[in-house]
Amino acid sequence: MKIITGGVTAAKGFQAAVAAAGIKYKDRTDMAMIVSKVPAVTAGTFTRNVVKAAPVVWDQQMVAQKECAQAVVVNAGIANACTGSEGMGYCKKTAEKVEQVMGISADQVLVASTGVIGMQLPMEKLASGIEHMVPKLSSAIESGHEAACAIMTTDTKSKEVEGKTVTLGGMCKGSGMIHPNMCTMLGFVTTDLAISKELLTEALKEDVKDTYNMVSVDGDTSTNDTVLLLANGMAGNTQITQKDENYQKFVEALNYVNTALAKKMAGDGEGATALFEAKVVHACTKEDARVLAKSVICSSLTKAAIFGHDANWGRILCALGYSGAVFDPEKIELFFQSKSGKIQIYKDGTAADYSEEEATKILSEEEVTVLVDMKKGEEEATAWGCDLTYDYVKINADYRS
Amino acid sequence: MKIITGGVTAAKGFQAAVAAAGIKYKDRTDMAMIVSKVPAVTAGTFTRNVVKAAPVVWDQQMVAQKECAQAVVVNAGIANACTGSEGMGYCKKTAEKVEQVMGISADQVLVASTGVIGMQLPMEKLASGIEHMVPKLSSAIESGHEAACAIMTTDTKSKEVEGKTVTLGGMCKGSGMIHPNMCTMLGFVTTDLAISKELLTEALKEDVKDTYNMVSVDGDTSTNDTVLLLANGMAGNTQITQKDENYQKFVEALNYVNTALAKKMAGDGEGATALFEAKVVHACTKEDARVLAKSVICSSLTKAAIFGHDANWGRILCALGYSGAVFDPEKIELFFQSKSGKIQIYKDGTAADYSEEEATKILSEEEVTVLVDMKKGEEEATAWGCDLTYDYVKINADYRS
Repeated sequence: MKIITGGVTAAKGFQAAVAAAGIKYKDRTDMAMIVSKVPAVTAGTFTRNVVKAAPVVWDQQMVAQKECAQAVVVNAGIANACTGSEGMGYCKKTAEKVEQVMGISADQVLVASTGVIGMQLPMEKLASGIEHMVPKLSSAIESGHEAACAIMTTDTKSKEVEGKTVTLGGMCKGSGMIHPNMCTMLGFVTTDLAISKELLTEALKEDVKDTYNMVSVDGDTSTNDTVLLLANGMAGNTQITQKDENYQKFVEALNYVNTALAKKMAGDGEGATALFEAKVVHACTKEDARVLAKSVICSSLTKAAIFGHDANWGRILCALGYSGAVFDPEKIELFFQSKSGKIQIYKDGTAADYSEEEATKILSEEEVTVLVDMKKGEEEATAWGCDLTYDYVKINADYRS
Repeated sequence: MKIITGGVTAAKGFQAAVAAAGIKYKDRTDMAMIVSKVPAVTAGTFTRNVVKAAPVVWDQQMVAQKECAQAVVVNAGIANACTGSEGMGYCKKTAEKVEQVMGISADQVLVASTGVIGMQLPMEKLASGIEHMVPKLSSAIESGHEAACAIMTTDTKSKEVEGKTVTLGGMCKGSGMIHPNMCTMLGFVTTDLAISKELLTEALKEDVKDTYNMVSVDGDTSTNDTVLLLANGMAGNTQITQKDENYQKFVEALNYVNTALAKKMAGDGEGATALFEAKVVHACTKEDARVLAKSVICSSLTKAAIFGHDANWGRILCALGYSGAVFDPEKIELFFQSKSGKIQIYKDGTAADYSEEEATKILSEEEVTVLVDMKKGEEEATAWGCDLTYDYVKINADYRS
């Protein structure tokens, strides 16, 4: 696997463009399009929230019914969720507009929205945005980057990841209402690989369990979470149709891209000053490892302690304890680590002999890891979150105004 | 049912006392004792956290093995959780000290602790505290009030509730690490009723489902949560041994006391400026109603919006949607209410026609309710939380120092 630069336009045949359509924001780009030169086999994972935004319903239907898709239209600012019967209408009109302007069949057009719930979309502005974007579609690295910026809401950094020789590139957004199960995150991963729809779907479904679904900013699973994976086959490889060595390489590359995007999302959580990672090793089962890791990064008390650079390991142990996994607290061990070093903080049922000063130094970095050694089995999992800060409260006490 | 004044000492034969033992705090009382003149039938519910503080383990064993208890010793400041093998030793020594000083058998003494996890208890200070308290035991209303104050940690208000002719009184503490399943809450309810252990246990077990277990401040289920219910029979009623009319009256009184304590705890959540109540009506099942109500009061985004007095109903709908309960979002209706009025905010799948100004006024009160009408069945449930504020972050970013 070779890491190259470039985002969603890195893979052969993918183009992107953006527009400042003025949907809600007045002074920035707020629409993006990704288009494949040829129809791309498509897989998707979507929010498990019972309350699903209209674009989620639209994409779920399209991905289930159609082998391929060729374009994705994204807007930021308004989520098109809880928009009543009008909601699906916006999706249909958006797809029809793309068909009208560039001849791609409306049933090959996917849509995604993020932003305020309950506001209606200004359809004329969306249509103008599409007219503006189509002539500007480009496979330049810069276009991929602009697209990653255009889909941001409370995000402070754009999130892009690049791939390898059979190229895989991605972008995503997500900062608050982040507790993917599948997650207000939007993720778009493109590849020029030739692969069957069945294997593409399985690869994505398996990978989100260890990537996006291991991220939490605030425990709120959004109405809009969507990850779309488009594979247009333009690399010219023999199509992957079984779980051979090439499939494994693809799975590995996909995991690299999704993990990197997931970490970027967590590190840019609303108000965050640090990426907070929980790595659980030597658990009995994979599910135990996931549940334990996620419980730690979801704990408000632990997140506030990380903000305070306070080695309050009791809160971590508490979060492990209420996770649902069964274990003997006397047997496990806890460590803090960052680029400033690694220290043991808990063993034999009580505090290890560590220096608070050293702990504070380790916890003052921008990426902080708590390592949980369950001392029992062979399974491991990692989850990503962020610290809980004054700015999270500030951003969310007054988001709509 | 008649509401009278007085807390844990309101019921006949119960006495309380406090001490400033200097366990961690230097300038306040930090120990309390509750003693019944005669052995009291005892029921308890305890944290479901796998990591259980030593006093939880001690009390669980005692309540399971013994019909009665006669004394409860509580300290604030140090939780006696994750204290290794020493932990149970403190419990035993505390009970033995009570036996030595006042002749109550050690196996009739329950203990409870709240505070920092992982620190060792100063046993000499605990012992001195007991020596100080025993001669001061009193059934005065003031003693019950002082006890409710002595068990506070980050609590800003003491929490007491009083009862009725067969008297039931209670006190509790709890402010952070509050997500009772059974909750860092401690609750102590005393009654002079004569009732069998079996029915007392069942009444408590059932009632916590709708009271303490419907409270959340931060989603963190503590290592120390304990509710103890002591019934000493000194009212002189014929012992309740079946689910007759008298049992139902007791259940009603218990629910009144526990609900009032639970609400006080939620309203005094760490950093809170408002009690945030979610009432779900017309749900299909009781469990659905509980899960939906609790999901709303647990949502960080909704809690931050309440702090901002922002009628961001999309977040409430989102929290209902990821609760796990299944429903049709187009059918349900949402309302905000407080002593300033009541408005409908959502119906027919989208925003109702309401005035933002009026909504802000309603949301600016100290007690705010979101009413969720599922429009389907006959079941209802209420959950209590609080808003998410800068002060929650402040308190928890630097709790240990």
